Amino acid sequence: MTQGAVPPSVTQLIETFSELPGIGPKTASRLAFYLLRGRSELASPTSAPPALALRLAEALRNLVENTRFCSQCFNVTEQDPCPICADPTRDHGLLCVVEEPLDLLALERTEQYRGVFHVLNGALSPMEGIFAEDLRIKELELRLAKGGIREVILATNPTSEGDYTAAYLLGRLKNSGVRVTRLGRGLPMGGDLEYADAVTLTRALESRQEL
Amino acid sequence: MTQGAVPPSVTQLIETFSELPGIGPKTASRLAFYLLRGRSELASPTSAPPALALRLAEALRNLVENTRFCSQCFNVTEQDPCPICADPTRDHGLLCVVEEPLDLLALERTEQYRGVFHVLNGALSPMEGIFAEDLRIKELELRLAKGGIREVILATNPTSEGDYTAAYLLGRLKNSGVRVTRLGRGLPMGGDLEYADAVTLTRALESRQEL
Repeated sequence: MTQGAVPPSVTQLIETFSELPGIGPKTASRLAFYLLRGRSELASPTSAPPALALRLAEALRNLVENTRFCSQCFNVTEQDPCPICADPTRDHGLLCVVEEPLDLLALERTEQYRGVFHVLNGALSPMEGIFAEDLRIKELELRLAKGGIREVILATNPTSEGDYTAAYLLGRLKNSGVRVTRLGRGLPMGGDLEYADAVTLTRALESRQEL
Repeated sequence: MTQGAVPPSVTQLIETFSELPGIGPKTASRLAFYLLRGRSELASPTSAPPALALRLAEALRNLVENTRFCSQCFNVTEQDPCPICADPTRDHGLLCVVEEPLDLLALERTEQYRGVFHVLNGALSPMEGIFAEDLRIKELELRLAKGGIREVILATNPTSEGDYTAAYLLGRLKNSGVRVTRLGRGLPMGGDLEYADAVTLTRALESRQEL
């Protein structure tokens, strides 16, 4: 871009947008100029909604200021423990281990699971440099050591990293005296848990197998 | 989404991201959780860059606070008049009329155009409810009335709306005594000016035709 033609604050926003996944410089520049159009005193049907840039800035700031990780399950939350961990009507003896908060959400959408969760923060991937100490595996063992959990459902993604993580966790948990199961293979191999539909996930919950 | 599983500040960010063009609820939710991952004390190669959410919030705030429209050409700028209008080495007798700031940028990238600009803020589109009073056409006539401009290049997009806008402008400007030209038809019909490569745009500038 020619200097002069693009003010520094626009360039800075384009560069910051480009750091988001799936957003290249072209899309970033479209987004920045779209937000600028909302500032024109000439309203038009193609203008951005009013104050969208400021509302987005505020939403980002709220995200950072108001959210933390639940000290029990490591899901994203505004209160600690999170509403799921604090819910006495849920089955705290049944623990479902997922990679990411979005996977937890996919399971919650089935409205069939009434246990609690443990969010690993990813899957093991030696290729990408993600090892056991990068995931919340020690915290999982500490939860099990406290007692009260009778079954752990390994709900990692049906990918090679997810399968490897599940196999690794089974190795570490098999002497804990806790029943370890995994989601039934109704899930298509190579898929991504968060995109699975509620029925497929419900089937997978029902047909979970002893490991 | 189930309440409880998604904190309000995450939901709010997802909804605000969804207001951006080309970003649906699925992408918005991916972006929000990507930014959250940057907050985990467990760093990993898939984590978001540090403080990305706050830097994005800051960039958005800077955009709103620091940018305005140039009072002469209506391009986005941090100082008024903008660096192009304030540049004494540019030809202030040659005025190129574009729809959007991104179109101005595409022309600047050719490094062949040394005149000044006028940004319309869109194209006429009766179907979408965009009429002459929604564009900076009155301001264009005021600039011409002040004198000193010997040629207006109509560089609207080679689309039906752009062609219609150029024809409409020609009608309003033909009695102004100013030469009115438009970009040569090296541009592919139905295309979008901002995606044209520099060579094509340079050809179009060279082969501009009398109307």
